[in-house]
Amino acid sequence: MLYDDQNIFARIIRNEIPAIKVYEDDQVLAFMDIMPQAEGHTLVIPKTPAITLLDLPPEAAAYTIQIVQKVAQAMKTALDVKGIVLMQLSGASAGQTVPHVHFHLIPSSVHELGKHALHMGDQEKIKALAEKIKAAL
Amino acid sequence: MLYDDQNIFARIIRNEIPAIKVYEDDQVLAFMDIMPQAEGHTLVIPKTPAITLLDLPPEAAAYTIQIVQKVAQAMKTALDVKGIVLMQLSGASAGQTVPHVHFHLIPSSVHELGKHALHMGDQEKIKALAEKIKAAL
Repeated sequence: MLYDDQNIFARIIRNEIPAIKVYEDDQVLAFMDIMPQAEGHTLVIPKTPAITLLDLPPEAAAYTIQIVQKVAQAMKTALDVKGIVLMQLSGASAGQTVPHVHFHLIPSSVHELGKHALHMGDQEKIKALAEKIKAAL
Repeated sequence: MLYDDQNIFARIIRNEIPAIKVYEDDQVLAFMDIMPQAEGHTLVIPKTPAITLLDLPPEAAAYTIQIVQKVAQAMKTALDVKGIVLMQLSGASAGQTVPHVHFHLIPSSVHELGKHALHMGDQEKIKALAEKIKAAL
């Protein structure tokens, strides 16, 4: 499968469509999932074009997981959550919906999660959560 | 919370109790989950004592995720799975059952997963799957 540079996350990386960002550097971007499975659901993506974790160069994976740690810590501090679920779905059959590798950070119990990508969240509420996370980074 | 060096994964790392291992080096260990949520369910853990992903030194996280990639690729090759779910649960409220940071690699659709740590699997079948993964590493 070839990487589709018109996928929604590639377009977010290029600033062609908006996202509620909480962190960005030259290699990684973190932004709010607009269809959250729980309040504060955040995505962390490498900017490297790669469909799944298996396609991602190891050095990009190594850097991304460190930003995942940072954002998770900020979520914990900012949103006063007790647990965080990290989920990374590789392949459509695993539930991956956007063909650009992404790490889900979900402040919730795994048994209480809503289904993946089912409902649009309250965008104003999501923006307020993003501000809290950014402030803790 | 203090790290409990008597937790089951710490004891597996010290070879005090057995595990069906698929990969080991001085920093990381990968072994089969004996209560699999799907056939081939594998765990990857850093040997560094850390309870959650947030407690893990960034350099250990960076190395571990690269072994996660390697093991995931071997699972894909060996078990002919289409998708892989990576799950990492930080905190009891997120569903974490063993207080040593671990990455779940589950060859399945996330919507079809069995519940976390509910049933013991067929140990002989699990050993056979481990052999296949090891052969592909």
